[in-house]
Amino acid sequence: MTKLVLDLTTSLDGFVAGPDATLEEPLGTGGERLHEWLFAAASWSDAHGAGTGEAGQDSDVYAEVTEATGAVVMGRKMYSGGEGPWAGDPNARGWWGDDPPFHKPVFVLTRHAREPLAMDGGTTFTFVTEGPAAALEQARAAAGGKDVLLAGGAAVASAFLKAGLLDVVQIHVAPLLLGGGVRLFDGVGPEDAAFELDRVISSPTVTHLRYRVTGGNR
Amino acid sequence: MTKLVLDLTTSLDGFVAGPDATLEEPLGTGGERLHEWLFAAASWSDAHGAGTGEAGQDSDVYAEVTEATGAVVMGRKMYSGGEGPWAGDPNARGWWGDDPPFHKPVFVLTRHAREPLAMDGGTTFTFVTEGPAAALEQARAAAGGKDVLLAGGAAVASAFLKAGLLDVVQIHVAPLLLGGGVRLFDGVGPEDAAFELDRVISSPTVTHLRYRVTGGNR
Repeated sequence: MTKLVLDLTTSLDGFVAGPDATLEEPLGTGGERLHEWLFAAASWSDAHGAGTGEAGQDSDVYAEVTEATGAVVMGRKMYSGGEGPWAGDPNARGWWGDDPPFHKPVFVLTRHAREPLAMDGGTTFTFVTEGPAAALEQARAAAGGKDVLLAGGAAVASAFLKAGLLDVVQIHVAPLLLGGGVRLFDGVGPEDAAFELDRVISSPTVTHLRYRVTGGNR
Repeated sequence: MTKLVLDLTTSLDGFVAGPDATLEEPLGTGGERLHEWLFAAASWSDAHGAGTGEAGQDSDVYAEVTEATGAVVMGRKMYSGGEGPWAGDPNARGWWGDDPPFHKPVFVLTRHAREPLAMDGGTTFTFVTEGPAAALEQARAAAGGKDVLLAGGAAVASAFLKAGLLDVVQIHVAPLLLGGGVRLFDGVGPEDAAFELDRVISSPTVTHLRYRVTGGNR
């Protein structure tokens, strides 16, 4: 059965984005520091058409996730940074550019219905208004037997964990402090989930911890 | 030169103790779950006179810290759970029993001066009122060339990190959620410290991440 995989990077002090996120700085103040390992990875760089990254363990970890993923689920904030009716969203076509880096079906959780949007490079955005379980069902159907990647953001990740829908959580631990921002698993409690360590891979830059979600609401 | 080593366990959601700590439940609600890996370790069990633990990587990691440590620094809360003048503290002799598990000199940060206290088994508690740097200096002098262990709690850990006094941070990541409690590195920001990964060891139960503190206020 296709798995739902959450994949995110956290700071040592437990933040997955910096404080004071804006449309110009969607990861919050200092938040891009979390992802320096990713920006430096060949597999990420290649997917974004830059081709300037480095091979190695970190690149392999990202490539592995990309190759295993058949469809993506994300929240509205992660799609465009906006909220409310689409007519008032300056990034209604997403802030991922004309050729988004996903190259596969993406399902966006929103309260505001709209028609699907086909972009260049094979990315299609489908807008789901019926909640997490419905988004997952549609993504599973579109994933061609591969996994579904839950891309975030943090509130969406908590909602899926609370709903017992997550199968795998991969946390990349970046050795730095953000001092504030968006918390990992905010609003989720010990009754909601249990974890079993599946794998640890580490480079000097970042430590990749992968867990199976085994208990709680599952 | 003898190093100052912070050693603590955090949950996946970034808590080093549970919520609502009391004298009866000093680790907060559910906080003891963080330390199940430690309670199960032969080296910890032996140090506490129980002798019921299991050998293995986790036990080795704890034994390594214990053997490298020549003196310990902790906050008043970790010593007794109390605050204010000693006359009003029901645990003025500490809540670690007549034969505390340290078996070495322990320096307790407090605002309330008192004479040193010698316990059974080689543990002596010395009370330091001149702040973190003074406590570290006294502990270094007593450590016989070995490392100084900063045992906690969390606020004391943040104060030492902010003061640029920490050399090594070992974080044991327990794969569970607490949902609330005391945050790791609360009140510390990106300007205060930088980290370099030194080592990763993992058992199925807990992942041990060790970092050198390299920048910020050091």
